[in-house]
Amino acid sequence: MLYCLIIAGGKGKRFWPKSRIKNPKQMLSVATRKTMIEDTLERLKPFIDKKRIFVITNKEQVPTLKKLVLLERKKIIAEPLSRNTATAIGLGAVLIKKENPDGIMVCLPADHIIRKKTKFRKVLSLAASIARKENALVTIGIKPSYPATGYGYIKVQRAKGIGHRAKREKKVFQVERFVEKPKKEDAEKFLRSGNYFWNSGIFVWRASVILEAIKEHLPQLYSGLMKIEDCLKTKQRKEVIKEVYKGLKSISIDYGVMEKARNVFLIEGDFGWTDLGSWRAFWEFHKKDEKGNVCRGKSVHIDTYNSVIIGDKERLTAVLGLSNLVVIQTKDATLVCPQDRTQDVKLLVKEISKRRGMKKFL
Amino acid sequence: MLYCLIIAGGKGKRFWPKSRIKNPKQMLSVATRKTMIEDTLERLKPFIDKKRIFVITNKEQVPTLKKLVLLERKKIIAEPLSRNTATAIGLGAVLIKKENPDGIMVCLPADHIIRKKTKFRKVLSLAASIARKENALVTIGIKPSYPATGYGYIKVQRAKGIGHRAKREKKVFQVERFVEKPKKEDAEKFLRSGNYFWNSGIFVWRASVILEAIKEHLPQLYSGLMKIEDCLKTKQRKEVIKEVYKGLKSISIDYGVMEKARNVFLIEGDFGWTDLGSWRAFWEFHKKDEKGNVCRGKSVHIDTYNSVIIGDKERLTAVLGLSNLVVIQTKDATLVCPQDRTQDVKLLVKEISKRRGMKKFL
Repeated sequence: MLYCLIIAGGKGKRFWPKSRIKNPKQMLSVATRKTMIEDTLERLKPFIDKKRIFVITNKEQVPTLKKLVLLERKKIIAEPLSRNTATAIGLGAVLIKKENPDGIMVCLPADHIIRKKTKFRKVLSLAASIARKENALVTIGIKPSYPATGYGYIKVQRAKGIGHRAKREKKVFQVERFVEKPKKEDAEKFLRSGNYFWNSGIFVWRASVILEAIKEHLPQLYSGLMKIEDCLKTKQRKEVIKEVYKGLKSISIDYGVMEKARNVFLIEGDFGWTDLGSWRAFWEFHKKDEKGNVCRGKSVHIDTYNSVIIGDKERLTAVLGLSNLVVIQTKDATLVCPQDRTQDVKLLVKEISKRRGMKKFL
Repeated sequence: MLYCLIIAGGKGKRFWPKSRIKNPKQMLSVATRKTMIEDTLERLKPFIDKKRIFVITNKEQVPTLKKLVLLERKKIIAEPLSRNTATAIGLGAVLIKKENPDGIMVCLPADHIIRKKTKFRKVLSLAASIARKENALVTIGIKPSYPATGYGYIKVQRAKGIGHRAKREKKVFQVERFVEKPKKEDAEKFLRSGNYFWNSGIFVWRASVILEAIKEHLPQLYSGLMKIEDCLKTKQRKEVIKEVYKGLKSISIDYGVMEKARNVFLIEGDFGWTDLGSWRAFWEFHKKDEKGNVCRGKSVHIDTYNSVIIGDKERLTAVLGLSNLVVIQTKDATLVCPQDRTQDVKLLVKEISKRRGMKKFL
């Protein structure tokens, strides 16, 4: 039986001022008219029942999320603190295993763009069948189309000994190693070699299998998770989760488990995947007008090229004589920065967090 | 007896979005905490009685102006249409002559910055005495401090035959010709020659003398003014002014009268004069922080230099990695442009005026 854990962990930094702590990227309409989390749920509809979908998120985001996702309250898991993906996935696995000891879980970031929905479902089905048959940890990799420095990479080799149709289709690989976001030169090498995929952060496995892997590679996390499991049906649940989280280190599932585990496979996710990581990526993704601009809301511009101008409905945004710029308006804030600095918007957010009386802008 | 005609004719284009049709530069706090028109009136207080001060403006600006200037309603002259300075000054002269046939009028733009108030009064007193004794048209010139291309110039020669203390002080000159805003090369020549002054647009003369000069050089305007004079005390006054204005050409006092008149003198106005003509000039005028920025309101910036950032009280303006920029926020609009394009802000205003549903931003 297929379950899904949607990981909605964004902190709302990279798409500031549109994204905020309480309203991060997954709750924005970045790609379509719907929010990314709504699109993510929509995409699962034909093959994973709503009753088997969990969303894990920061407790700050729960109120907004509840309005968007129309899931039962108990399907929305509120983390008291952010402790990265290993912890979030571990907690999700505990809950799913409780519901179905043999359940397969798909771990899905809430803020990805996926253009080809049917292919997406096919890839996940294939991943689920391998996870089931091989008791394997399956990760979805994306064939690089350019030497991106904003994604992690996964080095693979041909999968041996998997008696599966997919192998013949050359979609299944054995994982050799995980590589952090590389420098430009390395990214170019990876692209040329053909043995590297982008790490999409989408994983498929039995809840019981990932918990076993956590037990082996992150024993401290495992014992915390067991404490939580013991009191899931008690009144102390919230208290215990908070206590356990406080004592945990922040570690990603990639570094904490995947890099060390043996039975890791990669399946190529050829379903039109994009993880917009910055306003520049937003510009790259969207259709441009004849001057190369992506404009929304009320705006006027003269001699302005290759820019993103997001006004709002009431306020007029006027730009004159600038190129490769990003201007983002929200009700209470404005961002102005060049496209090639959009990866540093988080520095602005950090600066704002230090200023007295500016908390409300985070 | 000294009268003053304050010419508040701005259309609110160059300092958009702070300046608007109904709230142009003279009604903004550009240099001090007070609006420019308030500063202008304040400056006159010690030597021209409020009862002898008139303000001439577009009818759109009357409501805002009334709140600011605390003059009697009849001292605020509302022009039904904009017909440039010759018309405005002509109408002012008619009104002042009616009150005092021998009255001397100081014509003063409402949106100048003047740092040395005592010197300012001394210069105007000197100008008034020459205007009275010589029946002359007196203009105040500013010694150029750099080769400005944004001001008109006046070429002078030493004044001969004026038996006046000021001549000995080398402050009074005879005007040779008026020069329109020059190109850079010419401006540099003017600066080097030492015989050129900036045209401040401040004039002093007998109301009767300027009307005589208008009669000679702009007879059509003169006959219109006489029609207005005839009905000043009648109910038809407003109607007649409107009718006369419709038939008039738009012409400045410089080109319409001053260039052609003979008895024109220039007095050096060494009173710390500035006419801020753009957001760049605003930046040049104000004190900068250690990064060369002039910031107001709520703002955060990183790697940003030599820029103007005007936020407002509520909205946060965040700028990252840009230099020589101007970002101006108002309640309903935002301007983003490089400093070297601020003279083209009027193009944006023109563009906005063409757009459906954007009139409210003018």
